[in-house]
Amino acid sequence: MRPLSTRVTEIQPSMTVEIDTLAKRLSTEGRSIWSLAVGEPNFDTPINIKEAAIRSMNKGLTRYTAPSGMQSFKEAVCEKLLKENKLAYTPEQIIATSGAKHAVFNAISAIVDKGDEVLIPAPYWGTYPELVRYCGGVPVILECGVEDNFRLKAEYISNAITDKTKAIILNSPCNPTGVVYSSEELKYFAALIVENDLYCITDEIYEYFIYTKEPGVSIASFPNMQDRTVVVNGLSKAYCMTGWRIGYLAAFGNLAKEIAKMQGQTTHHPSNVSQYGAIAALNGSFESVLMMRQEFSERMYRMSEVLESIENIRFPKPEGAFYIFADVSAYYGKTTAGGTLVSNSVELCRALLDEQGIVIVPGAAFGCDSCVRFSFTASLPTISVAMPKFKEFIESMR
Amino acid sequence: MRPLSTRVTEIQPSMTVEIDTLAKRLSTEGRSIWSLAVGEPNFDTPINIKEAAIRSMNKGLTRYTAPSGMQSFKEAVCEKLLKENKLAYTPEQIIATSGAKHAVFNAISAIVDKGDEVLIPAPYWGTYPELVRYCGGVPVILECGVEDNFRLKAEYISNAITDKTKAIILNSPCNPTGVVYSSEELKYFAALIVENDLYCITDEIYEYFIYTKEPGVSIASFPNMQDRTVVVNGLSKAYCMTGWRIGYLAAFGNLAKEIAKMQGQTTHHPSNVSQYGAIAALNGSFESVLMMRQEFSERMYRMSEVLESIENIRFPKPEGAFYIFADVSAYYGKTTAGGTLVSNSVELCRALLDEQGIVIVPGAAFGCDSCVRFSFTASLPTISVAMPKFKEFIESMR
Repeated sequence: MRPLSTRVTEIQPSMTVEIDTLAKRLSTEGRSIWSLAVGEPNFDTPINIKEAAIRSMNKGLTRYTAPSGMQSFKEAVCEKLLKENKLAYTPEQIIATSGAKHAVFNAISAIVDKGDEVLIPAPYWGTYPELVRYCGGVPVILECGVEDNFRLKAEYISNAITDKTKAIILNSPCNPTGVVYSSEELKYFAALIVENDLYCITDEIYEYFIYTKEPGVSIASFPNMQDRTVVVNGLSKAYCMTGWRIGYLAAFGNLAKEIAKMQGQTTHHPSNVSQYGAIAALNGSFESVLMMRQEFSERMYRMSEVLESIENIRFPKPEGAFYIFADVSAYYGKTTAGGTLVSNSVELCRALLDEQGIVIVPGAAFGCDSCVRFSFTASLPTISVAMPKFKEFIESMR
Repeated sequence: MRPLSTRVTEIQPSMTVEIDTLAKRLSTEGRSIWSLAVGEPNFDTPINIKEAAIRSMNKGLTRYTAPSGMQSFKEAVCEKLLKENKLAYTPEQIIATSGAKHAVFNAISAIVDKGDEVLIPAPYWGTYPELVRYCGGVPVILECGVEDNFRLKAEYISNAITDKTKAIILNSPCNPTGVVYSSEELKYFAALIVENDLYCITDEIYEYFIYTKEPGVSIASFPNMQDRTVVVNGLSKAYCMTGWRIGYLAAFGNLAKEIAKMQGQTTHHPSNVSQYGAIAALNGSFESVLMMRQEFSERMYRMSEVLESIENIRFPKPEGAFYIFADVSAYYGKTTAGGTLVSNSVELCRALLDEQGIVIVPGAAFGCDSCVRFSFTASLPTISVAMPKFKEFIESMR
């Protein structure tokens, strides 16, 4: 058989998904597993969303709609963006997608040509560089270390720009670091983006999960940014709709038109049932989100407490999202109680799973091998069992 | 602003979708429109499917599953393929997709590299060549004229093969022609595919809509074919689940693995609610499908009757799918009653919409400008009004 396409064979699989799949398998095989791996709230989809979805089915609203989604979905998104993000869009500038990942894919696909360079601050969500490569582009990684509290600085952008730089991908609040960029920081980024005529893809899927007093700001709201920016968001995290696969993007003019056209030929619209559920979410009560944020804040506190009590682990307190990204490299080169020599993040996570049944994600998945990612979407009881086990595991390394 | 990617800007939009959108808009604006354009059964999703979908929601089964879909969905597909198509697959060889279009996209993306040639018999579903181009491949069109009853011949394949030929896309029953290939014909195609080490993508979405006595056969069932074939299918047409966006593909070894990996990074799994609905469809009663086929057969008869009564229109009676693809080129160069000179399929369809409010799809959308496509998924009353109006329109051309 002839070789398959390099475009696809060169994609690295999603490490987070792989680890979650392994953990689920071990669990069905009867092992006690405590997972702090996946970025998925452990709450049920709110009832008003389910009810709206069921009503739409019963009404028989299950036929094809426009490839870019239903008008009423787009209108609900426009209202949300105007009210919460001070961003004015018209419905034809909105594309409903099968989750935010799909929106990122569509945006990169429409912007990035062969050889184009795309700036991606690290630590990053592993999907970004893979999708840039899928499109023949070159991911240019802007390294932000734990000594910077993982924060991107404007000078990192300006130092990396060449005549091939086409776009930058931002993610605030950030998976995996929890960094939330301030209005002041974003202003400098925006100025560089405009000055260098770049496109910007801003992934705002974690926008409601901010634990500081400063509200989140969209970089699209800065002068001259909106027409060069694709705002990506979705319902998965805020409304516990991960399995419904419903997200969206907002973009001006040709950008929106080209993405809609591409979606019409590659996937078509997301499921109507999910679109109707999402409309209810966008127009409905905000209470479940607030409750969840409060709960996550509590969980983060418990998780931080344990990590702070361990020597030689460094991490900035997350301002947003639902992860702690901690530098554990002081333990590399040591041997676990089970006798495994650990020299990188993958080996550490594997030994932790083997010896303690705890699942966390290696920093290598986010382009930062010195770290590991803990998700506090797990329940407090899980966190209360898992974190002391992690502490025991790491403190017994010699 | 810098130019967007050529990959996306060069995609042609789906003409079928555009025409359907135009017709829906005219209709909301108050015009009387009779649409014979879209390939979507005008029946509701069967109740057992809706009930299963609702149960899954109520049970809270709305979290992430594996990127390639749920095990139980894959098992149901394996059973179906074995029972109905004599094809043995294991669940890890099945990928659940957001509709059959998405399955075709995934398959082409995994197979086609820059410069690879892909054989596509014309008339074709317009999405095939666009997706090949999106992937940097070269669509090589195998023209099958009305004088051949639009049937592909083995010699067309062998004449077109070069050292760059990587794959062929087959679609039987065929949209738009209604051709269903016999076992005898497929045997010759398969031999050439194996001999020349090609991949084969076989789109079998219309498999239940066959109006002859011969049952449909999958080309994957021929010797040495299964490991080089991607079988594409979905629930949209057979179970009136168009808006649910649920389909699948089946492939061996690396092909399945690479596609699953790609899907994990680009879209993730289709909506769980849709997967649960689809499981109920696959495991449930076949009665709604039989009833629909009977109804479509009746509609085809009515539609054919009118077309046969018009001079100088030529079409083969459809053996499958739900379209009549008719050569109307004898009327090109003439002027409509409304005074429009018609010189191609797009102009004919536009004038027909303007003057009579009838929507059909220009053959240009399928790579065959001499023809137009009539869909008999519309109701009998619609057909009974629309077809005589079409006859009046075309017979008054001078």
